[in-house]
Amino acid sequence: MAFEVLPSGSRIGILGGGQLGRMLALAAARLGMRCHVFEPAADPCACQVAERVTRAAYDDVAALRAFAASVDVITYEFENVPLAAIDAVAEIAPVRPGRRALESAQDRLAEKDFLRATGLETAPYASVRNADTLHEALAGIGTPSILKTRRLGYDGKGQARIMAPGDAAAAWASMAGAPSVLEGFIDFEREISVIAARGGDGAVVAFDPGENVHRDGILHTTTIPAAIKASTAQDAVLIAGQILNALDYVGVIGVELFVTRSGLVVNEFAPRVHNSGHWTQGACLIDQFEQHVRAICGWPLGDGARHSDAVMTNLLGDEILGAVDATSAAVHVYGKPEPRPGRKMGHVTRIAPRG
Amino acid sequence: MAFEVLPSGSRIGILGGGQLGRMLALAAARLGMRCHVFEPAADPCACQVAERVTRAAYDDVAALRAFAASVDVITYEFENVPLAAIDAVAEIAPVRPGRRALESAQDRLAEKDFLRATGLETAPYASVRNADTLHEALAGIGTPSILKTRRLGYDGKGQARIMAPGDAAAAWASMAGAPSVLEGFIDFEREISVIAARGGDGAVVAFDPGENVHRDGILHTTTIPAAIKASTAQDAVLIAGQILNALDYVGVIGVELFVTRSGLVVNEFAPRVHNSGHWTQGACLIDQFEQHVRAICGWPLGDGARHSDAVMTNLLGDEILGAVDATSAAVHVYGKPEPRPGRKMGHVTRIAPRG
Repeated sequence: MAFEVLPSGSRIGILGGGQLGRMLALAAARLGMRCHVFEPAADPCACQVAERVTRAAYDDVAALRAFAASVDVITYEFENVPLAAIDAVAEIAPVRPGRRALESAQDRLAEKDFLRATGLETAPYASVRNADTLHEALAGIGTPSILKTRRLGYDGKGQARIMAPGDAAAAWASMAGAPSVLEGFIDFEREISVIAARGGDGAVVAFDPGENVHRDGILHTTTIPAAIKASTAQDAVLIAGQILNALDYVGVIGVELFVTRSGLVVNEFAPRVHNSGHWTQGACLIDQFEQHVRAICGWPLGDGARHSDAVMTNLLGDEILGAVDATSAAVHVYGKPEPRPGRKMGHVTRIAPRG
Repeated sequence: MAFEVLPSGSRIGILGGGQLGRMLALAAARLGMRCHVFEPAADPCACQVAERVTRAAYDDVAALRAFAASVDVITYEFENVPLAAIDAVAEIAPVRPGRRALESAQDRLAEKDFLRATGLETAPYASVRNADTLHEALAGIGTPSILKTRRLGYDGKGQARIMAPGDAAAAWASMAGAPSVLEGFIDFEREISVIAARGGDGAVVAFDPGENVHRDGILHTTTIPAAIKASTAQDAVLIAGQILNALDYVGVIGVELFVTRSGLVVNEFAPRVHNSGHWTQGACLIDQFEQHVRAICGWPLGDGARHSDAVMTNLLGDEILGAVDATSAAVHVYGKPEPRPGRKMGHVTRIAPRG
């Protein structure tokens, strides 16, 4: 497909109205694009900055079709948009990144199968459908290992650690019957992620890998540069490029990797802008959100070089109340009404001259 | 007045819906603020990114009062908002910066009188009300000089150069009877500007002075750092601080200065974010728009240090069509519908490591 350049003034449809949609809309505005957000929940925070909002369910085909007809291109801010909704809108307007990336990313088993088929290293894994298959999987993979639902898990939800075979029954019970995957435990030195983009012309660019620290299963900080060898950083970027090319991807992707003594292991990827790429707002002239907008609009990708080192810290729940005092950092407040515990309310990026 | 800190989620009213209002709204969104734009013209470009828009005339008191009642604080994006409109809204919500700055900035004569009363250097000037007073003024100030309308001039409009006494009649005719000011010509080496901010607590911070080049009376480029001595930069910042303090100002101000062999001469100031401060978006962690929002919301001012050198170039008219190719620069497109010749359509900022 020849890739049309959408001029400033074009309409971007965003499926999902959370903070990622909000920051996409803000970046789109800088390029003169107009955004229409589609979101089932009431008062999505992206609606404060988008020109237009449709509040409807993902199975409301009429609403989806009207939404699609009002825009020039469609993207999504989270990977759990039902494929049926994607199919409904894709008949009317191009969806970028496409269905294929979503299909893989929505299902941990399909994702791992895809990564292995692409020649990439993953944790050992096995499909789990019931207590018996969990037993078999444990026999092959051993403990410690992690049982995860195949679908709809994020930020550590839908996961249970199995430290010893005796934990298996409780772990399976906590999956509530959902098809799952058992993953072998990876003894990693650190976790890094690569935020990369692929344009409509197939060009690939990547931001420097960041090093992630989680707390209670939720990203806490991303530090750039990651404390890794230059060759490891290069390998990480090449892996992201392989994934982008294999998916014939258009847009920004977030690829999480484990750094182990024997090399890089792909943890997972998210077919969207990524929390571990928020540092690019403060440390790069063109950030991950603009890069995504450029890609899906057929613009040439921007230079993702960073001018500074950076540490991004998520602000969860009441931590957002400290945002007002962050005078020597770039603070970003998502505009969500209630600072519930553990809820991502904002983030703050500190920068320093490149080391 | 004790200065309340407006929490994220507060409502900011912006009088004026052009590109400055648009970029204020985008910066406000980063801090979780919600914006309501008041603009008489149809389809203002700020409306694409603001939560709410009122389209009404500046003499529509009912609309002004309803607007004011819907917000927690009011600011303006241009200095020619009628004072009567300011007075109407100020009864209901605080207006920052206040009336005093507007009064001075709306009238070149009042502005020059204020600057002189503050002990600052200006061009020689004299009030001109008719051909006779122009004759007297020319006798005192001489040629070359510039006749300017006292009100509503911007980007070189409402100005006529008088190179020799014989030009006086035509110059006065071009003022169309408007009260004017004759200004003596300043033999300057370069023009610089300081973007500074004063918080509700009286704290003052300034961005590094930039050097401005105009084309046809419209800002073309701002380059940071300006090619001036450190002591000159310091003097420029101190002058901006004097103006802010004298006006008991809250918010961001743009002060234009001439660098002459005998020191700095104040050209004019704009009581708002300023075109020559757009470079701060690309080269500072906290830009002029966020600094303004911080000030008017009672937040502590941010660190205005720049991480990079920068050159900002305005994109006028059809020049905006090149924005798509600016892949190694930060491009900002204002979302205006028609690229009329000379119309400010966007800008682009290139950065480089600090020299």
